[in-house]
Amino acid sequence: MQWENGGMAQEALQIGGLIFPGMDQMDFTGPFEVLSLIPDSRFHILWKDLTPVRDGRGLVLTPDTTLRDAPSLDVLLVPGGRGQEALMDDEVLLDFLRTRAPLARYVLSVCTGALLCGAAGLLRGVRATTHWNSFHVLPYFGAIPVDERVVVDGRHVSAAGVSSGIDGALRLVALLGGDSMVQAIQLHMQYAPEPPFPGGTPQTSPSKIVEAARAAARPLADQRLETAKRVAARLGITPA
Amino acid sequence: MQWENGGMAQEALQIGGLIFPGMDQMDFTGPFEVLSLIPDSRFHILWKDLTPVRDGRGLVLTPDTTLRDAPSLDVLLVPGGRGQEALMDDEVLLDFLRTRAPLARYVLSVCTGALLCGAAGLLRGVRATTHWNSFHVLPYFGAIPVDERVVVDGRHVSAAGVSSGIDGALRLVALLGGDSMVQAIQLHMQYAPEPPFPGGTPQTSPSKIVEAARAAARPLADQRLETAKRVAARLGITPA
Repeated sequence: MQWENGGMAQEALQIGGLIFPGMDQMDFTGPFEVLSLIPDSRFHILWKDLTPVRDGRGLVLTPDTTLRDAPSLDVLLVPGGRGQEALMDDEVLLDFLRTRAPLARYVLSVCTGALLCGAAGLLRGVRATTHWNSFHVLPYFGAIPVDERVVVDGRHVSAAGVSSGIDGALRLVALLGGDSMVQAIQLHMQYAPEPPFPGGTPQTSPSKIVEAARAAARPLADQRLETAKRVAARLGITPA
Repeated sequence: MQWENGGMAQEALQIGGLIFPGMDQMDFTGPFEVLSLIPDSRFHILWKDLTPVRDGRGLVLTPDTTLRDAPSLDVLLVPGGRGQEALMDDEVLLDFLRTRAPLARYVLSVCTGALLCGAAGLLRGVRATTHWNSFHVLPYFGAIPVDERVVVDGRHVSAAGVSSGIDGALRLVALLGGDSMVQAIQLHMQYAPEPPFPGGTPQTSPSKIVEAARAAARPLADQRLETAKRVAARLGITPA
């Protein structure tokens, strides 16, 4: 298969996936599983340097390409997780996102990776989603919040919380390679999920469970809101 | 929360997850996401030594505990992937599985991790599943093949291919901590999957896609069958 890039046919589809300290590993590893199964593709695991990073619960992931050395990317994956907060004013990362995203065919944000994209100014006027616990901060980045599991708006594909990155990546594959490529990947990874409970969202989970989760996550949610307000001021955005 | 272990209450639930070269990373990272959210638990990432391993498509994972130094484990996770083949006669690993599995409260095999459990003699008379492409080799380990996404038989929980490890881990959490713990974890990881297609199994995927996948996977499937026959002879098992 040959992939078009700005009119130039090239050998392999170039995919870059960001990792960072304190991320949620599944935001990355879910889409990695899907995207790395695209025929004739090359996956670059990106961070500022080549030092391994530790995810929020202790899994060590290792980059293989620095932001500086990343080739021209067709697909850019931006995961989230608790550690996203520490990067909301990080000019090295934000500059990478600002300069690379407009050249990519697709940007896939997962979970609070959408907030990183927002801080880089990529979500102005863009329909997007994020983890349910951060959904209310999207307007501060000029985004139009859409409460769906996967939202596609032009080159920006956003997935809701954590596990939704798998569905977001599969939707992205459909855009890139068509339905049969998605079906082949789903079959390979035997993706016919059977969640034990219909829950998994605030709307479908028992209210007691939702209240407890919201209470536990409130400090981080409050902090993210404060950060979003500061970023909105920097970007000159008045939330709708 | 306190967890019972052989009548002894202890502080934290001890979980061990195996990694190895050529594994399929999602077999591990899916269950890691779920199991590491169990309250008062400690997750050990296990391999023979502390050298990072590379999964079948290039993701580097890093162990933090050697097989020799692993504490007594309540839960033992055994992933699969292409690299499982190279370990089917590996006495260091098989001895670890043989000695540790009977002391664990639950063993969770994902994908062809079931074949590793089988090679260690853990599946004699056990109802189990594995990736659809290896399902036919289960009888060579004395297992009773059950074509379901997750199969629970006593202490052995087995999940089918790759992504089914998420569902297997959630079922295991239900056994350990009850329904509300599962619902809290599903909500945290927003696990309300929406696969783009109903496919994901040979039964539900278009026949053209299934035929192409079977053809591509045939060399590995043939090799696994030969290995299973050799292991069956070593274990003195005549497949039913």
